[in-house]
Amino acid sequence: MLTKKGAATRQRIIEAASAEIRERGVVATTLDDICRRSGTGKSQLFHYFPEGREQLLLAVAEWEAGQVLADQQPYLGELTSWPAWHQWRDAVVERYRRQGVHCPLGVLITEIGRHSPAAQAVTARLLEQWQRELQTGLERMRADGHLARDVDPARTAGALIAAIQGGVTLLMSTGSAEHLESVLDLCLDYLRTA
Amino acid sequence: MLTKKGAATRQRIIEAASAEIRERGVVATTLDDICRRSGTGKSQLFHYFPEGREQLLLAVAEWEAGQVLADQQPYLGELTSWPAWHQWRDAVVERYRRQGVHCPLGVLITEIGRHSPAAQAVTARLLEQWQRELQTGLERMRADGHLARDVDPARTAGALIAAIQGGVTLLMSTGSAEHLESVLDLCLDYLRTA
Repeated sequence: MLTKKGAATRQRIIEAASAEIRERGVVATTLDDICRRSGTGKSQLFHYFPEGREQLLLAVAEWEAGQVLADQQPYLGELTSWPAWHQWRDAVVERYRRQGVHCPLGVLITEIGRHSPAAQAVTARLLEQWQRELQTGLERMRADGHLARDVDPARTAGALIAAIQGGVTLLMSTGSAEHLESVLDLCLDYLRTA
Repeated sequence: MLTKKGAATRQRIIEAASAEIRERGVVATTLDDICRRSGTGKSQLFHYFPEGREQLLLAVAEWEAGQVLADQQPYLGELTSWPAWHQWRDAVVERYRRQGVHCPLGVLITEIGRHSPAAQAVTARLLEQWQRELQTGLERMRADGHLARDVDPARTAGALIAAIQGGVTLLMSTGSAEHLESVLDLCLDYLRTA
């Protein structure tokens, strides 16, 4: 267990690493850069990340995954009306439009090794959490009579996750949010009329 | 211009390269392997691909992109009724389920260089052609009165491309076609009720 101060230092290192990597790229970022930016010494860094660079990159990836969900709040956690769903939709589009063609989480996953168990666990956990939040929203909408009884919240939440994933992939290859917007609008139109 | 025989030889080399790469991976596949499998000599291979390996890999990528569309025929070219749309949906799911977690086109694009203009042109052309075929299907459905007038065929075709892209990306990371099926079903449900 880390003390409160220890947890804050660890978090400062992670956020400094995230900022360096966003600015300079993951390959060019050294532990020295991260120490300088976070105002910590090398021995302090190794106290929190005894396995070094790889362990730190994984922690940064976990933090970036958390940011994906945090950027959708407060809407994602309060999907209790159609206006809330549309605000969430706008927040998602805005987030990915701002992010553009460079995905900080994707860069880290590639560096850690796309097929490594650790990297796969980070993305699997993010997708599960995201899908669960959407499912909770759909369940509440259905319980309140805003959604047809025959809409399956789990399956539909999975469809929404796929829609976002595809829209973001196309945004990253074309630079345009058009696909992301049209597929999210199609999904919301479907839900409102279902 | 190639003669008919020349075009056939060139195509035999491309298909041999595709098969070798699918079996052994792109890094392990040598020009000698491809010559052996296609029954051609090195000088013949360089006659058709004077710039060598890179030029051949690009031709294989173009061919694999063509296969993505070919695997959806005859349905993709004849989307004139709801049963045809559902047969197309099943063909897409079946194609990607069979393909599993290894995407032959993706492997080639990575090897050529995901950000190279040549690789980007191959994927851009595939997505455009695919989207145009879906748009044609939607336009015909609308002209025949099977689809509401306020459905925008171009925008909706883009949404379908995003849905497939996301479903396939998740299939490749999870091994399951569940997301692909649920997002395609949501889109078709939307179109039938729109």
